[in-house]
Amino acid sequence: MPVSPRLITLTTDFGASDHFVAAMKGMIATIAPRARVIDVTHEITPYEIMEGAFVIAETWRNFPQGTVHVIVVDPGVGSARRPILAEAGGHYFVAPDNGSLSMIYYAASKLTVREITNPKLMAKEVSRTFHGRDIFAPTAAHLTLGVPAKTFGKPIHDCVTIDGIQPQRSGDKSWRGTILKADRFGNLITNFHIDDFGVITTRAFELRIGTETIRRLALTFSEAAIGELVAVVGSAGYLEVAANQTSAAKILGCGPRAPVELEF
Amino acid sequence: MPVSPRLITLTTDFGASDHFVAAMKGMIATIAPRARVIDVTHEITPYEIMEGAFVIAETWRNFPQGTVHVIVVDPGVGSARRPILAEAGGHYFVAPDNGSLSMIYYAASKLTVREITNPKLMAKEVSRTFHGRDIFAPTAAHLTLGVPAKTFGKPIHDCVTIDGIQPQRSGDKSWRGTILKADRFGNLITNFHIDDFGVITTRAFELRIGTETIRRLALTFSEAAIGELVAVVGSAGYLEVAANQTSAAKILGCGPRAPVELEF
Amino acid sequence: MPVSPRLITLTTDFGASDHFVAAMKGMIATIAPRARVIDVTHEITPYEIMEGAFVIAETWRNFPQGTVHVIVVDPGVGSARRPILAEAGGHYFVAPDNGSLSMIYYAASKLTVREITNPKLMAKEVSRTFHGRDIFAPTAAHLTLGVPAKTFGKPIHDCVTIDGIQPQRSGDKSWRGTILKADRFGNLITNFHIDDFGVITTRAFELRIGTETIRRLALTFSEAAIGELVAVVGSAGYLEVAANQTSAAKILGCGPRAPVELEF
Repeated sequence: MPVSPRLITLTTDFGASDHFVAAMKGMIATIAPRARVIDVTHEITPYEIMEGAFVIAETWRNFPQGTVHVIVVDPGVGSARRPILAEAGGHYFVAPDNGSLSMIYYAASKLTVREITNPKLMAKEVSRTFHGRDIFAPTAAHLTLGVPAKTFGKPIHDCVTIDGIQPQRSGDKSWRGTILKADRFGNLITNFHIDDFGVITTRAFELRIGTETIRRLALTFSEAAIGELVAVVGSAGYLEVAANQTSAAKILGCGPRAPVELEF
Repeated sequence: MPVSPRLITLTTDFGASDHFVAAMKGMIATIAPRARVIDVTHEITPYEIMEGAFVIAETWRNFPQGTVHVIVVDPGVGSARRPILAEAGGHYFVAPDNGSLSMIYYAASKLTVREITNPKLMAKEVSRTFHGRDIFAPTAAHLTLGVPAKTFGKPIHDCVTIDGIQPQRSGDKSWRGTILKADRFGNLITNFHIDDFGVITTRAFELRIGTETIRRLALTFSEAAIGELVAVVGSAGYLEVAANQTSAAKILGCGPRAPVELEF
Repeated sequence: MPVSPRLITLTTDFGASDHFVAAMKGMIATIAPRARVIDVTHEITPYEIMEGAFVIAETWRNFPQGTVHVIVVDPGVGSARRPILAEAGGHYFVAPDNGSLSMIYYAASKLTVREITNPKLMAKEVSRTFHGRDIFAPTAAHLTLGVPAKTFGKPIHDCVTIDGIQPQRSGDKSWRGTILKADRFGNLITNFHIDDFGVITTRAFELRIGTETIRRLALTFSEAAIGELVAVVGSAGYLEVAANQTSAAKILGCGPRAPVELEF
């Protein structure tokens, strides 16, 4: 009986104009010719680990159990930072240990993280500047062939996480959060997730950002007037500041890392 | 005997830097692990339905019969606009009912359009802001598994179409058209198709755009002098205004929606 | 026994917003439904043959033997320039004969180049403006089906090559080279390859570019101070001018075609 091909997703800051992504795919195709690769994005802002951490957090639940997610935003490539393999929520995550998986650690159940140390499961020669091709791609490829996670290296318990990626309580009924990303349509995505802040759908609230205060939760973008700022629960469960057919980011002059405050 | 994998093409305004496209592909891979997905483009200008309508019209004939084409340029997502499934020319087209398929309705034979209403063929929970993932991707995936079109919903006969997407007669021997798109090389693609205006290859003509009048039909770009404006029949059959190794769009200062007049 | 699917890579200047790439993929899927296509990049600067020549030179060794690489940067499409099929180093290369394969001719062993002339292996109608779809894509697709190279056309021995793509001796111990590309991170990639200039790892050197002289070879980007210019051997073996987490291209105000001098 034919088995479904195993999936690998790629999230990097490599852009679209160099050979980096193709080099990773060539390595995967050499080791695991039947693995299927899906690009999440290669347009993470260079070196912006938090942005990569967020994009994979938004994405992974859309894929079947057993999918291998590779995240390479790696300013420290070639330095002492460790390559890691995490198992969480029935998925695999392969990345440098620089905080890229911070939101996965928070959200996913049954977490095990291993340092990748087995040289037999890397490229024969490991370049000092391109671990995406020489360590992370081979790890993903071997995982799709059924190599068990424990073969890659031993569990570790001191993974790097990014500060401020979760909202902090700032008062009795208020939390301080941050903008994680502006999407293509100018919607500003906060780190308030509906799983933690579901109360927003039933209680009066103020969401403060820049010089504006938003008090309305809309169900769809088109429910707002053109140019009106509203809060929306985005498709991955994060609260967003949006404006119908207009860029909320431009209206507010805000972007990633801008502070937001939520009060009930 | 192994059957060829069924193809799905994707055309959206989702861009390359968010998780939207990957979320659609994850949904497709979950429902139909063997379906193959080919990106047409995700760089349709946000909310520009006419541009999406044109790109799919240029593209679909390059694919085999039975291909499923998904087009998501959807400013009205979550509002009352209907999700539709069209069968035309032996292909399937899945899109919001907002005019995205206007040029398919005009060009393709044996047209049937259905409203997609069967909740069993959608995601279990349908988000109000992301029908690409929750309705259009599952529809395409189920089609590749052999689910018959009639299972998705009933035929409708009042589809939305875009005004001005076909040239209008403006005089005895003249037609008024429009620029549908500027391509990467600055070629300006008109809505005059060789199937309707084939006479241009045998008769003297004037093509007026901006402040210029073009009287020469070139067979190849390289036939023109560098910087000379000529008319060319593009690879999808639409008449283009081009300049050899130069951007006609820049020379003319024209882009999408600019009027053009063709006179014989 | 199932055979691994044959790979095709695509490198073009077609960009991401038009239907050109999808049209090529549709043609491939029609002829060879089981072929797998991997994009290298479609963001080669329009008409920049040298950039395309370099990107494929960086990329091809990452793929398995037998891979078919299609390179389409083709300002002369429709003119007398020949379409060619090269066999080199166990791989296939399909491109216009305009110098796109210059670096492959230099680097690869067992070179045979043929003119593609067999109309039975092209599209039924060959457009004058889109040989990517009508000649190069069908050639690649038929190759993955096992059609022998000799069926496409006869060997030729007068291929076009690009001047200045290899470093030239400029003195007793000095060579004049050029910047082939600035990558996404602003690293400036020279045409000095470690296979020819390996001595740089053991001997004192001066690498002169713009108004700067670099004397240090770093093993990793992170070894340099932020903003410090160093030389690095890149992941494809070419010497690069880099700056840790900063764009060397911006610091130097240099880009493709800038001269560099290497002296020992």
